[in-house]
Amino acid sequence: MKAVSIREHGGPEVLEWTEAEDPTPAAGEVVVDVVASAVNRADVMQRYGLYPLKPGWSPYPGLEVSGRISAIGEGVTGRQVGDEVAALLTGGGYAQKVAVPAGQLLTVPEGVGLVEAAGLPEVAATVWSNLVMTGNLKAGETLLVHGGAGGVGTMAIQVAKELGARVVTTVGGPEKVAQARELGADVAVDYRTEDFAEHGPYDVILDVVGGDYLERNVQSLAADGRLVVIGLQSGLDGRLNLAEIVFKRASVHGTTLRTRTKEYKAEVVAAVQEHVWPMIERGAVRLVVDRTVPMADAAEGHRLMEAGGHLGKILLVNDESA
Amino acid sequence: MKAVSIREHGGPEVLEWTEAEDPTPAAGEVVVDVVASAVNRADVMQRYGLYPLKPGWSPYPGLEVSGRISAIGEGVTGRQVGDEVAALLTGGGYAQKVAVPAGQLLTVPEGVGLVEAAGLPEVAATVWSNLVMTGNLKAGETLLVHGGAGGVGTMAIQVAKELGARVVTTVGGPEKVAQARELGADVAVDYRTEDFAEHGPYDVILDVVGGDYLERNVQSLAADGRLVVIGLQSGLDGRLNLAEIVFKRASVHGTTLRTRTKEYKAEVVAAVQEHVWPMIERGAVRLVVDRTVPMADAAEGHRLMEAGGHLGKILLVNDESA
Repeated sequence: MKAVSIREHGGPEVLEWTEAEDPTPAAGEVVVDVVASAVNRADVMQRYGLYPLKPGWSPYPGLEVSGRISAIGEGVTGRQVGDEVAALLTGGGYAQKVAVPAGQLLTVPEGVGLVEAAGLPEVAATVWSNLVMTGNLKAGETLLVHGGAGGVGTMAIQVAKELGARVVTTVGGPEKVAQARELGADVAVDYRTEDFAEHGPYDVILDVVGGDYLERNVQSLAADGRLVVIGLQSGLDGRLNLAEIVFKRASVHGTTLRTRTKEYKAEVVAAVQEHVWPMIERGAVRLVVDRTVPMADAAEGHRLMEAGGHLGKILLVNDESA
Repeated sequence: MKAVSIREHGGPEVLEWTEAEDPTPAAGEVVVDVVASAVNRADVMQRYGLYPLKPGWSPYPGLEVSGRISAIGEGVTGRQVGDEVAALLTGGGYAQKVAVPAGQLLTVPEGVGLVEAAGLPEVAATVWSNLVMTGNLKAGETLLVHGGAGGVGTMAIQVAKELGARVVTTVGGPEKVAQARELGADVAVDYRTEDFAEHGPYDVILDVVGGDYLERNVQSLAADGRLVVIGLQSGLDGRLNLAEIVFKRASVHGTTLRTRTKEYKAEVVAAVQEHVWPMIERGAVRLVVDRTVPMADAAEGHRLMEAGGHLGKILLVNDESA
């Protein structure tokens, strides 16, 4: 098969479409012939050498794919060669084939194309695990989503509305304000001109910004509020007002999905299949796709993500197999 | 009845044994004729005016009592006048009588005297709610307890050992090291001469210190570790390394028991009765009592707590009714 390898750490140009060894399925795994994958910020960090890989992880980037099962390992039940699936990965999605634990497979939701399905697993799993499993968001509560124009943000807005929450989101510029409102946000704050704290207090805050927002986030939390930090786009640390945390009985959580155990990922994937897929199938939640790029030209996908002008997911497509 | 009133905010001398109105039980409440109460750090803060009271709270200090039920309000079942009980309060324990929601009543554990029982509710509820309900401490995990010579610390060590955890604690001085070891701590660290981080990493940290320990606590957390801050004896804020929090998938929780709803308190009290009382009754967990002081002389109890030489609970006793 072919796969996108990282020749050395650096800019998008270090990504190369190279010959690679075909994967074989270990016990409990299947091999998926990849139709499409998607670019995630973690892939860019991995390319720069900022995301240390753990033993056993694929050297190729790619945290999600869609495709067709081409081989089935020992002990896997309920799956057939030829099944169309999506999958949450620990890496290796930028390739023509990838081996994946069966617990991380998802069906392709009705009404979603096989290419588009490649962009669902990572955002859906991130949104569900953080809003519900970590953040314990409940109907009637108020959620603040930072980065409401991103892949995670656009889905978090929609899923939270389906859960019955009031949703406030921050975005940059009037176009993105309009898009966030169209996705269902009750309030879309342009962070360039407005203060998000004015629309709180917030029961849950889903944050990709990190240190620079820490103090303001904590100030904006309601009693029993939960701040869930999943990204550090601006600032690796910040001042924490512990008195405020204690007085409000608040909590600050940091999470990453990629380093979780196989068992935890299977739990998240099962919950996504049960709760998020029906929202997608009845049209209440949709994936926002910016564009598709040939997988062999993954470098172009990375350039687009780093330029930051995209709105939604950038998909990488194996043209031959679609 | 008589009660300890706070004449004005200030030192221990502002506490006065004064005439007060007898409480009557509202629906769902009982009145307890108080045999004993106990001094908690929150009472000292309240006396200084550092603990704003909420509407509906008793003006008298006292977060726990033991005694006998003398009146029963509408809708309370399973309780009789004359029953010996302990109770978790939102205030009002420094008195001859106090009204308390029936859900906050506990039996007096077998083998524990009625006076001594006054010192159990607050520490038992604090330890259980923070270690188990918030911290989710499990058998085989490692717990760090800061302040292992205090009322909460001494009980946290014992309860955590019963839960099957490895327990490390920090205390000041060789005498307290010996006591902590005797209570079952696997490691007792004298913070004056040793670094607690050397005995980690910790799955759960129960902290009464606050800001000054924040960075070191976070550094000492294991993957998926939980830092639970319940006191701010040294530092109201600190630097939070969010990258470390995200990378470890860690969390920082602040809690106070007093401001919780009646429903939450009833849940904690029921769990304490079910899980902690049997540990006490079989002798695996014991309350460390420093001494008893007449309630009319509550000022002396506060002086002792502020001097800091005590080891365990300071109980306030209504001699007439014991």
